[in-house]
Amino acid sequence: MDFKTRLDRAWSKNNSLLCIGLDPELSKLPDHLAGLEHSIFQFNKQIIDATHEFACAFKPQIAFYAAARAEEDLELTINYIQEKYPDLLVILDSKRGDIGNTASLYAQEAFVRYQADAVTVNPYLGLDSLKPFLDYKEKGIFILVRTSNPGAKDLQDLRIGDLALYQTLAAKAAKEWNYNNNVALVVGATYPKELKEIRTLVGDIPFLMPGIGAQGGDIEAAVTNGADSKGKGMIINSSRAILYASNGKDFAEAARRVAEQTHSEINRFRKVKV
Amino acid sequence: MDFKTRLDRAWSKNNSLLCIGLDPELSKLPDHLAGLEHSIFQFNKQIIDATHEFACAFKPQIAFYAAARAEEDLELTINYIQEKYPDLLVILDSKRGDIGNTASLYAQEAFVRYQADAVTVNPYLGLDSLKPFLDYKEKGIFILVRTSNPGAKDLQDLRIGDLALYQTLAAKAAKEWNYNNNVALVVGATYPKELKEIRTLVGDIPFLMPGIGAQGGDIEAAVTNGADSKGKGMIINSSRAILYASNGKDFAEAARRVAEQTHSEINRFRKVKV
Repeated sequence: MDFKTRLDRAWSKNNSLLCIGLDPELSKLPDHLAGLEHSIFQFNKQIIDATHEFACAFKPQIAFYAAARAEEDLELTINYIQEKYPDLLVILDSKRGDIGNTASLYAQEAFVRYQADAVTVNPYLGLDSLKPFLDYKEKGIFILVRTSNPGAKDLQDLRIGDLALYQTLAAKAAKEWNYNNNVALVVGATYPKELKEIRTLVGDIPFLMPGIGAQGGDIEAAVTNGADSKGKGMIINSSRAILYASNGKDFAEAARRVAEQTHSEINRFRKVKV
Repeated sequence: MDFKTRLDRAWSKNNSLLCIGLDPELSKLPDHLAGLEHSIFQFNKQIIDATHEFACAFKPQIAFYAAARAEEDLELTINYIQEKYPDLLVILDSKRGDIGNTASLYAQEAFVRYQADAVTVNPYLGLDSLKPFLDYKEKGIFILVRTSNPGAKDLQDLRIGDLALYQTLAAKAAKEWNYNNNVALVVGATYPKELKEIRTLVGDIPFLMPGIGAQGGDIEAAVTNGADSKGKGMIINSSRAILYASNGKDFAEAARRVAEQTHSEINRFRKVKV
């Protein structure tokens, strides 16, 4: 199945554009899980079961597993999602970027070792650093364009003639690098103006939009400015606001409530553009 | 000990600017090692013992370990170098880059989990993505500026007014981001003209220069154009040409010969600028 069909299926499954970021910090896990073997996986499993029906995707951020020496928990987590909720996407958020022969090993990390459906990549090294990822035609390659953090301005906003660097890059990614129709762009939900500019520039290519929830991005502005011509085109991520809605024994129910609420709020602002 | 003192000690130890890249590909390991437990570590150990006296640093590229599910081999490798050759540097080549709270976990990966002395980072997300690394004052933070691959031109060469993006970034990294005096720049040895331009722009900040050996960078041009005012300032990396000098039982001796030769060649072209 090609990536766009896979993504459409994921959006349809729960009529959802919500992606749930699985960024488990050991210091924030509820006390009653802290001592268990594979405590990160145990935490994720409960979050996944409690929230899946409001989601189109789960996005584990690999740094949290690497720092905790918990690669096994990441493998278990991805495997669990794919066995139990095969219609939902797993996006490995690793933001890799390296020269060609190394990039092919990072692609192997994402797609062979971890079996992710999609991966985030950093474009600073150019097309030959992305090609080994793009060659996996059935996988989604999510290219960082305009990120959700304050420092995004340091490089991404620099002017290349009439355009900002992020605009130049968005156009290049959508027009030159999308030869396998598996490119998506990462655009922070915290910057609605930039979202709109990029949408205008690139047409209906999918966006991964981090930044709502703990990072403070406004859902209405994000949905209104990020939507494609069909009122879709967005995978809107929330991590901390859902994962840490409560740090007690009720963390999974609390996460479920926030996921449900976020799902409704996103859908409230979706409309097909005319 | 601050990073610059640590680096000076590493350069002095073997009068060497040579860094040996530890990029072990399972498919390229000599047959007699293939079956062993921790075969990657066994391979690295023999390479390290055979080549250390010509090196100032070892640079494991984390993708090779991640793709092979061999994080333990990476831990063992770094620990081995630091126990046995404590004057030499371990540079973890991971090219990480993410928003602040995630970046702090990547910094933990590099400096707490793996105990590296230095790490490579990708600047596309700006200063707040680098700050959690820079805050480790005694560690070296190697910022990608102008990489050694053909695709480097796609983004890095775009013009921001009178300067290329990589020049703008080099100046920013050297002047604004080096507040803890622990910044170094990654500049491909395959592009001598760019090397020289960056050296002129930033003064005596250290460079990590990949690209000699298998990537074809010319050693004379690299050393001449990359040297700082003291004829040092460079950590010149070679990986594949040394690791895979032979794929037989003699791989370690063969690696030693190439390392020795590369070390001499680099030193032949070093001179203090007047």
